[in-house]
Amino acid sequence: MVAYDGSNYCGWQIQPNAVTIEEKLNEALTNLHDEPIEVIGASRTDAGVHSLGNVCVYDTSARMPADKVCFALNQRLPEDIKIQSSREVPEDFHPRYASCRKTYEYKILNKRMPDPTVRKDTYHYYYPLDVEAMNLAASYLIGEHDFTSLSSVHAQVKRRIRTIYSARVYKEGDIIHIKLTGNGFLYNMVRIIAGTLIQVGSGEKKPEDMLAILRARDRQLAGPTAPAHGLTMMGIEYDDLEEWV
Amino acid sequence: MVAYDGSNYCGWQIQPNAVTIEEKLNEALTNLHDEPIEVIGASRTDAGVHSLGNVCVYDTSARMPADKVCFALNQRLPEDIKIQSSREVPEDFHPRYASCRKTYEYKILNKRMPDPTVRKDTYHYYYPLDVEAMNLAASYLIGEHDFTSLSSVHAQVKRRIRTIYSARVYKEGDIIHIKLTGNGFLYNMVRIIAGTLIQVGSGEKKPEDMLAILRARDRQLAGPTAPAHGLTMMGIEYDDLEEWV
Repeated sequence: MVAYDGSNYCGWQIQPNAVTIEEKLNEALTNLHDEPIEVIGASRTDAGVHSLGNVCVYDTSARMPADKVCFALNQRLPEDIKIQSSREVPEDFHPRYASCRKTYEYKILNKRMPDPTVRKDTYHYYYPLDVEAMNLAASYLIGEHDFTSLSSVHAQVKRRIRTIYSARVYKEGDIIHIKLTGNGFLYNMVRIIAGTLIQVGSGEKKPEDMLAILRARDRQLAGPTAPAHGLTMMGIEYDDLEEWV
Repeated sequence: MVAYDGSNYCGWQIQPNAVTIEEKLNEALTNLHDEPIEVIGASRTDAGVHSLGNVCVYDTSARMPADKVCFALNQRLPEDIKIQSSREVPEDFHPRYASCRKTYEYKILNKRMPDPTVRKDTYHYYYPLDVEAMNLAASYLIGEHDFTSLSSVHAQVKRRIRTIYSARVYKEGDIIHIKLTGNGFLYNMVRIIAGTLIQVGSGEKKPEDMLAILRARDRQLAGPTAPAHGLTMMGIEYDDLEEWV
């Protein structure tokens, strides 16, 4: 399980001429186990997106006890990427295809003035937002739906049906939290939901519009994609893995 | 009123060959008002210390409405320093000598693994801490005391008596908050209090030891100075200024 501040990375996935989380993990693991290692990640987060509990797996012939890997690996990782725990998994476990519940959180700093101390993991929105309206709109997302309207037209998958188990919007201090748990999320889906909920909060859309947006299966009806830096991958629970150590 | 992420600065106070908050404010104000401006700050925070509500004042012959200065100034400041509000004050007002209540918060991430997303404003402490014991120890600080034992031997003032109005230690998630409000704080005082409370939390000292430490007026009896990056200047209320806009 890996936590990171995504501010300084071009996202999770390895790509040429860009520093990514996946690349840093591969380097540190290759150095640790003294054999070429390539991780497979559960959530290929975008540039600027953070994580408290993303998951990745790898194969190795090394004999280090799995629960000690996290400590040895953290010595080899930069301060903005830190392993939270490590364990062995069944050989056929795939972090992306295994049945699970993923939780994402989008944070909005909703006050007049920007706050430098949270600038990297909240999106600053100047105008007051109606949190109750946003929470009502979010409640329409709960259940099994086709999320074509609320995902990027560039999403590469054909099947766009996902199940949202919980969707809650609440305010703590000046920060509005949009917290979503589901069995999977399409490309840009949380950021587009956040952008649409902001339109509801500002009065541009009504909470009930969320239903029509879902039904239309048309990306153009939803709000804009909210900026990446407000988004954090909170964690993943796998149905067939015992509780995470 | 000014908020900043102090990570990239050598503290508040102007010094040669180092970038400071005060310098950045002077530059931005000099540019804004087109005349040389030098601010006077309330809290001259150390390198790495953050602020949500430090206060500074300056004289100007410029005619810009005081409550608009914050907006114009933020356009000229880097993203890690942002003015929260601006107003006119009486000519004889001095932010350091005026009677006030200052609040500081020291944050400790108390879990096994480091969390990259809060690494810049919490001090990561691996071993479990007893928050109740820390809160009891902190309660002995409330009232008027000589804080010689709990301030740096390099503090330049002679009078080391200060009044603490409230002192509270509580845990939210994995973060322990040490929140202190007083009429003033000596050099390194909050960080030494934090270092001493950590010793209480780990069992190295008893909560009641705080009384003996205060009475002894001996810096050597207290704990170490906790790292700067866990400290945030939360705000200042002045007795003779109406409520901050």
